[in-house]
Amino acid sequence: MHILVVGSIAFDTVETPTISIEDSPGGSALYFSSAASFFAPVNVVGVVGSDFKLSEIQLGNDRPINFDGLYSETGKTFRWGGRYYEDPNKRDTLFTHLNVFENFQPRIPESYRESEIVFLANIDPDLQLQVLQQMTNPALVVLDTMNFWISGKRESLDKVISKSNIIIVNDEEIKQLTGAVNLVQGGRKVLEMGPDVVIIKKGEHGAIMMSNDSYFVAPAFPVSNVVDPTGAGDSFAGGLVGYLARNRNFNDNEIRKAVIYGSVVASFNVEDFSFKRLASLTEHDMKQRFGAFKEITKY
Amino acid sequence: MHILVVGSIAFDTVETPTISIEDSPGGSALYFSSAASFFAPVNVVGVVGSDFKLSEIQLGNDRPINFDGLYSETGKTFRWGGRYYEDPNKRDTLFTHLNVFENFQPRIPESYRESEIVFLANIDPDLQLQVLQQMTNPALVVLDTMNFWISGKRESLDKVISKSNIIIVNDEEIKQLTGAVNLVQGGRKVLEMGPDVVIIKKGEHGAIMMSNDSYFVAPAFPVSNVVDPTGAGDSFAGGLVGYLARNRNFNDNEIRKAVIYGSVVASFNVEDFSFKRLASLTEHDMKQRFGAFKEITKY
Repeated sequence: MHILVVGSIAFDTVETPTISIEDSPGGSALYFSSAASFFAPVNVVGVVGSDFKLSEIQLGNDRPINFDGLYSETGKTFRWGGRYYEDPNKRDTLFTHLNVFENFQPRIPESYRESEIVFLANIDPDLQLQVLQQMTNPALVVLDTMNFWISGKRESLDKVISKSNIIIVNDEEIKQLTGAVNLVQGGRKVLEMGPDVVIIKKGEHGAIMMSNDSYFVAPAFPVSNVVDPTGAGDSFAGGLVGYLARNRNFNDNEIRKAVIYGSVVASFNVEDFSFKRLASLTEHDMKQRFGAFKEITKY
Repeated sequence: MHILVVGSIAFDTVETPTISIEDSPGGSALYFSSAASFFAPVNVVGVVGSDFKLSEIQLGNDRPINFDGLYSETGKTFRWGGRYYEDPNKRDTLFTHLNVFENFQPRIPESYRESEIVFLANIDPDLQLQVLQQMTNPALVVLDTMNFWISGKRESLDKVISKSNIIIVNDEEIKQLTGAVNLVQGGRKVLEMGPDVVIIKKGEHGAIMMSNDSYFVAPAFPVSNVVDPTGAGDSFAGGLVGYLARNRNFNDNEIRKAVIYGSVVASFNVEDFSFKRLASLTEHDMKQRFGAFKEITKY
């Protein structure tokens, strides 16, 4: 199955306790694509400035990523700067320069409109709705969002949620979205809003998957040396959605495995800067870590 | 196998957003015993005041708990007061009156000294060392401790740690103990201090078990209605140690299952005040929830 992703494309400046990297390629659409294209073809929609050279971006050799929907505008590419600490769960945003992303209007190329799976990366819910309106009849819509839209664009967000099959949120966002402090109660409330499945990301504590008749808890893969946590959430989504696209099946068992593949991919992603580790991923790497996952969860 | 536990016996005053309970029986030794005695015989050592009536404490009908080592002193029993919030991970201690516990010196009855398993609940590490000196040759020593002793009695604590086979700590404590923010790195450092196994409790996020050649991650069982979180850690330890005592085997597979049984027992414990739920636990309850655990972790 083909996956459509609409999201940000950015240059990130990342400071960690040991190193600083300036203007390395990032953004939700690219992290997602680099991860998902390991499993299935990805159609990208996004906007960049005239300072962005696609040929210089290493998302993975020979990965099936289509950039027909990448629009180049006069001006600068979206830039984000963040600082991480020894505890990689803490992060400060140093700056956000939207640049050409500020007036982004997603136009879905004709050739993309029959993509069977849509991943709505974290952008304005009004734009997410515009994306859905342009699609023919996707078999699966997966939604990501963030605190900014939960508080600022609630009505539009509720509309997108009601049109999504799977929603991916983190533990803070689900509390904000539902008012429930208990994740189980929060998950149930989200399911009442429309989606068939809610996936709650808990960072180093793993993820929870809930549907009306299933509950699944997955740990995170233990990474002893986190180099750059940027893109962990988007690569998790990429691994998850990519796996589903490859296996063309969205039943409970497959979604559980997809969550594990999401965790596997995210664990690789944080081991190096930008998409470096994702780009070099091999089938052997994936199999080995999936096996290691089995090993650390078996009893 | 017989288990020896040395720890506190208390009257707890617990305030939750919905209810307040005054002077309900608690303390690490009783929570642990109520949980562990489901699986194996437990020998208790502790001290109470003259206001404590053992006959009024419901730890579980016909459970094999031996109170020969329960000393009654003139004065009042240890009292602790705590307040919980809607987020049950937050807790304020309202008061701590040590009372007769202040001068507690653990004397191990002759009949207890050959207990094969020792659980050193969270008390002064100097007293934990005194306990070990009085034991004949335990096959397994399991240690619990807390931030207070990590900062205040480090030298003695290091001694007890070096004499323990399994140490149980929470995520905050292991950071304090090792200086490592990464739990994997922290776990390795603790293993260098002597124990064969370190178990890291992460509350609602489950637990991690590490040894030199094994790593295991277990989720917490999702409880949608937490009534009283008091004693969750001690009942986790009780389920874990009790399971090991019943199966008389401390290999990697059994320790993994023991962690799950610890989580199962802790999940029951928080569903009601004091030991109420633990006391009424049946084999059927345990099997059912162990099965539910399998269900929520399978992929």
